[in-house]
Amino acid sequence: MLMSDQLRVAIVGGTGYTGAELLRLLASHPQADVVAVTSRQEAGRPVAGVFPNLRGHYALSFVEPDMATLAEQADVVFFATPHGAAMDGVADLLRRDVRVIDLSADFRLRNVQVWEQWYGQPHTAKEFVAQAVYGLPELNRGAMADARLIACPGCYPTAVELALMPLLRAGCAQTKGIVADCKSGVSGGGRQTKLGMLFCETADSIAPYASAGHRHQPEIDQILSDMAGSPVDCLFQPHLVPQIRGIEASIYAPLLDSAIDLQSLYEQAYQDEPFVDVMPAGSHPQTRSVRGSNMARIAVARRGDTAVVYCVIDNLARGSSAQAIQGMNIMFGLDQALGLNAPALLP
Amino acid sequence: MLMSDQLRVAIVGGTGYTGAELLRLLASHPQADVVAVTSRQEAGRPVAGVFPNLRGHYALSFVEPDMATLAEQADVVFFATPHGAAMDGVADLLRRDVRVIDLSADFRLRNVQVWEQWYGQPHTAKEFVAQAVYGLPELNRGAMADARLIACPGCYPTAVELALMPLLRAGCAQTKGIVADCKSGVSGGGRQTKLGMLFCETADSIAPYASAGHRHQPEIDQILSDMAGSPVDCLFQPHLVPQIRGIEASIYAPLLDSAIDLQSLYEQAYQDEPFVDVMPAGSHPQTRSVRGSNMARIAVARRGDTAVVYCVIDNLARGSSAQAIQGMNIMFGLDQALGLNAPALLP
Amino acid sequence: MLMSDQLRVAIVGGTGYTGAELLRLLASHPQADVVAVTSRQEAGRPVAGVFPNLRGHYALSFVEPDMATLAEQADVVFFATPHGAAMDGVADLLRRDVRVIDLSADFRLRNVQVWEQWYGQPHTAKEFVAQAVYGLPELNRGAMADARLIACPGCYPTAVELALMPLLRAGCAQTKGIVADCKSGVSGGGRQTKLGMLFCETADSIAPYASAGHRHQPEIDQILSDMAGSPVDCLFQPHLVPQIRGIEASIYAPLLDSAIDLQSLYEQAYQDEPFVDVMPAGSHPQTRSVRGSNMARIAVARRGDTAVVYCVIDNLARGSSAQAIQGMNIMFGLDQALGLNAPALLP
Amino acid sequence: MLMSDQLRVAIVGGTGYTGAELLRLLASHPQADVVAVTSRQEAGRPVAGVFPNLRGHYALSFVEPDMATLAEQADVVFFATPHGAAMDGVADLLRRDVRVIDLSADFRLRNVQVWEQWYGQPHTAKEFVAQAVYGLPELNRGAMADARLIACPGCYPTAVELALMPLLRAGCAQTKGIVADCKSGVSGGGRQTKLGMLFCETADSIAPYASAGHRHQPEIDQILSDMAGSPVDCLFQPHLVPQIRGIEASIYAPLLDSAIDLQSLYEQAYQDEPFVDVMPAGSHPQTRSVRGSNMARIAVARRGDTAVVYCVIDNLARGSSAQAIQGMNIMFGLDQALGLNAPALLP
Repeated sequence: MLMSDQLRVAIVGGTGYTGAELLRLLASHPQADVVAVTSRQEAGRPVAGVFPNLRGHYALSFVEPDMATLAEQADVVFFATPHGAAMDGVADLLRRDVRVIDLSADFRLRNVQVWEQWYGQPHTAKEFVAQAVYGLPELNRGAMADARLIACPGCYPTAVELALMPLLRAGCAQTKGIVADCKSGVSGGGRQTKLGMLFCETADSIAPYASAGHRHQPEIDQILSDMAGSPVDCLFQPHLVPQIRGIEASIYAPLLDSAIDLQSLYEQAYQDEPFVDVMPAGSHPQTRSVRGSNMARIAVARRGDTAVVYCVIDNLARGSSAQAIQGMNIMFGLDQALGLNAPALLP
Repeated sequence: MLMSDQLRVAIVGGTGYTGAELLRLLASHPQADVVAVTSRQEAGRPVAGVFPNLRGHYALSFVEPDMATLAEQADVVFFATPHGAAMDGVADLLRRDVRVIDLSADFRLRNVQVWEQWYGQPHTAKEFVAQAVYGLPELNRGAMADARLIACPGCYPTAVELALMPLLRAGCAQTKGIVADCKSGVSGGGRQTKLGMLFCETADSIAPYASAGHRHQPEIDQILSDMAGSPVDCLFQPHLVPQIRGIEASIYAPLLDSAIDLQSLYEQAYQDEPFVDVMPAGSHPQTRSVRGSNMARIAVARRGDTAVVYCVIDNLARGSSAQAIQGMNIMFGLDQALGLNAPALLP
Repeated sequence: MLMSDQLRVAIVGGTGYTGAELLRLLASHPQADVVAVTSRQEAGRPVAGVFPNLRGHYALSFVEPDMATLAEQADVVFFATPHGAAMDGVADLLRRDVRVIDLSADFRLRNVQVWEQWYGQPHTAKEFVAQAVYGLPELNRGAMADARLIACPGCYPTAVELALMPLLRAGCAQTKGIVADCKSGVSGGGRQTKLGMLFCETADSIAPYASAGHRHQPEIDQILSDMAGSPVDCLFQPHLVPQIRGIEASIYAPLLDSAIDLQSLYEQAYQDEPFVDVMPAGSHPQTRSVRGSNMARIAVARRGDTAVVYCVIDNLARGSSAQAIQGMNIMFGLDQALGLNAPALLP
Repeated sequence: MLMSDQLRVAIVGGTGYTGAELLRLLASHPQADVVAVTSRQEAGRPVAGVFPNLRGHYALSFVEPDMATLAEQADVVFFATPHGAAMDGVADLLRRDVRVIDLSADFRLRNVQVWEQWYGQPHTAKEFVAQAVYGLPELNRGAMADARLIACPGCYPTAVELALMPLLRAGCAQTKGIVADCKSGVSGGGRQTKLGMLFCETADSIAPYASAGHRHQPEIDQILSDMAGSPVDCLFQPHLVPQIRGIEASIYAPLLDSAIDLQSLYEQAYQDEPFVDVMPAGSHPQTRSVRGSNMARIAVARRGDTAVVYCVIDNLARGSSAQAIQGMNIMFGLDQALGLNAPALLP
């Protein structure tokens, strides 16, 4: 691709919240144009009819997903689908030399058996798992630049992994006994008509869920272990909080070296990262400070022999669509921050 | 000013929500730079320490408000202050040939006596009232281009006036018996530590207020009468709803001519306006569709002999800071939409 | 029924919010016992498994709806069903001398043709329409005491009718040009898995709906005309606000007699009513002040020649289930306030 | 006191949320009458003028706090004050044989030095600390029955202590390495005009706070250590969530004995407790299931060698005022559940 060209982008599965977020963000991207958005259910309907915030920004209507057509139209295809869809489309696209950025879970786990166990279905594109690059820029920027297929991290894993990376890489936390207590806004549950996602079932209430284990657990296990260089045992517990966007992760990690200067460790680890903000000592990050933004904000404190790391992200932005666009920027040699620089919406 | 230069912008009163919104929006404006932000209370503190969403976007700290200094630094000064502050600073600034955009109420009313009655204090800059241009672009774009002082409309008046302008200009509504039932998110009350603005006093509840009359009433009266060419009597009733941003105005106007095609009337009236969206017949605008955006969305329906007009805006954006930036763009001969094109944040 | 006996209550359709509210309130009723709760979908499941707030209060499980069985078990049957269900069960129950209290719309309209037009289906129990008593206690207490079938008012009509009754009965408002701008919490939409009821589709946003007319319009028309003794034309416009419970109605009524003392009129009209609170002049009722309660709070103001009446109710309590229990109390000769005296939950 | 008499209750500091909650709950208590409510700031104003939900329930006005007068009027005085007030009034009251129930922190800690350190002021009633009984019924019911002074538990400690009591008493958890990640609605911050409690500063956002330690930490330490019979180290981390009421505590406790049947342990521990609900295995308690209620709901899960205990309470009810009323009931030999049996408000 020539840098002077506009990137042609297609989105498969554009009626969910991550699709909507891709469309919102790409409307302001100076070097990318959305050329097609698919939806089986809404095919033929204007995109702006489903998402009224996009009126005036897109003239497109949803189309039926057809990989051959998309391959002709687009340089890169985002899958903003539930798990199970990307793995059916990836072969067609990669064969035709179209890049793929998968926001779903299909290519996040290297171990296909573990994937099949947690997702309860056969994996239909096993041969592509090895070439998928896990799209956490702070971890994999180099590989992402060369990738043809990026597997975007889950929303919770993004927060947990960014929070723990400096500690695990420095080898100063125990690899057992870590607790990641995470809280997510309701948009994490997707744009699905489930009883538990109704306003009257979620407003003015907080609750844990997935006490028996969540699908993001094996992803967290895999990446944290990569970071530490040995198996990491991190108890991940999600909660639903009555807000639209935002994940807050409070992570409790027993320290091996209680003399370590945590603040410096974190500041140095992320000093060159445009989308990780290590806040001053004593800070308490709020999810509203990242609403709509690709920024992750982190604060770190010590309580006795335990490091407490707080990380806030916007689950739809940094936890999914904005990070995916950062991945696209990296993949195509653009400035990684292109289209992602607007401050968060506060209040 | 040469078009190739960056506009130098100062903000007086930068710790309220309209100040925060100016800072958020101007961070993405390609031809304006914020050079100073004042606050008596927070002088010396980094702007990004008060508004954590701005971390990484501004290195500025708040400074004491000093008009002489601002006049040297800036081409244009925004007043994001409570009423009563802009009128004390405007003379100094205009004399030094700095343009002023006042987001407060000081220069909205042509009749100074009416102003003094509603605001309960003497007006200290009466001589500037006549030259102030009311900054509703759809009404006054020409005059705004020549203005040295723009008086930005109030949040409620913006919604009510945009909703009624086509009807009043066409002369097809009665000028008596109009009702404007308006609902606003809590940010309309400002960033003030008042009991009635606490989360626990406002969440999960709706209530009317100002049953004896609201300060936006005389502003609405003045502008609607201008539009109609004769006195208009519009009963304006505000309500507080449990959300951060957003105004919805439902306006009930008895029709003189019940054969008029309301949909066409509105579509034609606003066909060239980038920031008014006349939605298809049968639409129900939602405030979330304009969250963070300068867009006003309007739908119109007929019920018997009454026109029902619905208008949604973001009270901090179109109802204040974004509209003020549109005013700045117009005033300085820039593309009026510069820096204001990002879609609303949804969900 | 002997006053010393416990009333045996059955609820048809217990999995919606009005069913849940009946169960919640009846748990504290000293003279009523719930003996059966039906649900086709949840038959066999414990009631407290669906509504966790009821754990420890009910040992009952949902059963299939069977009118013959219910008639044996219960003295009175509440229908907390969507429209169309009560009319199929009422004949069986009344024939067996069981009283019926219908929270749905089936028997609210005297004109069956109008009913069929708005509800889009044939009415299957036309012969019972005439004997149904509209269950607004302030209007119909006497007839309710003798009723065998009570048709409970809709949530919006309850608020609008209570707000306008004194004015219309006194004949001091015009019967044309009244506007009722109403706002409802999301629970008014029921416990249904509809996209528009999701947290992420409703939170932090307000919107009008039903611009072409709402099913509560003919009910409002009928009752207001009864009150005035002549046809009343009231433009009713509902809005959805981001809160769980609560309706606020702001009503604008052009006055015939502008000398009338509105405050006295309302205070006298409701002086003996335990569940209407006429607030002091200048008050602004908040929905949170009636959360979970049968109380309606009303304030009245004058703006020129227009009376502005504000009325707040809890849509699930006064707008449905609590008012239905008040109806039961009246029907069975109990103290009408029995089980309904707990203050609203605030904050 | 004779059981047939009504208890005469006074409330010191009735304008906060715990005062409002006492008033709400006591309005339905069959054997207690509120005879006086004090407030320095609102003296002379009707109670129902401050809390509109209480209109029609109380004719009282706030009075200046005067211990001698209260001692004549009341059998028991509740302090619903910030810390520092109860310790100044208790001597006067106890000397006159009036019982005291302190909802504040003044008498929670046995170690006065620790108290003075955390609260930053001298303790002025040290001689009463020893006789204060910590008012957690499940722990101290016997002593509460004989108490003259009850120190009600803090809101967070109530949740954490109930969650851990069975485990610590059974000796099957490690006493080091426990993490209590707690989330509270905004009402936990009180009815104070602080910037951080504004709707627009808290809505649609979650954040940790008190990373350097919270005043509830020493209370938790003290009581957990009592339960275990040896020092317990529990890292307590609070978070603010955008809802009015409710605390959710997720507690991670490393197990000593991984063969223990946690579900049975909890069910047996609380089988006779009317206000602890051990939910079925696999449950996820929601705060809305206890809104307005004295009930604590607990679920327990095992993740590897860690017990995960979830506990939800209403911070104003079980976390303060309702538990205080249960304490009063116990103290005066009444049925402990009197006035506390209404189900939670859901939805």
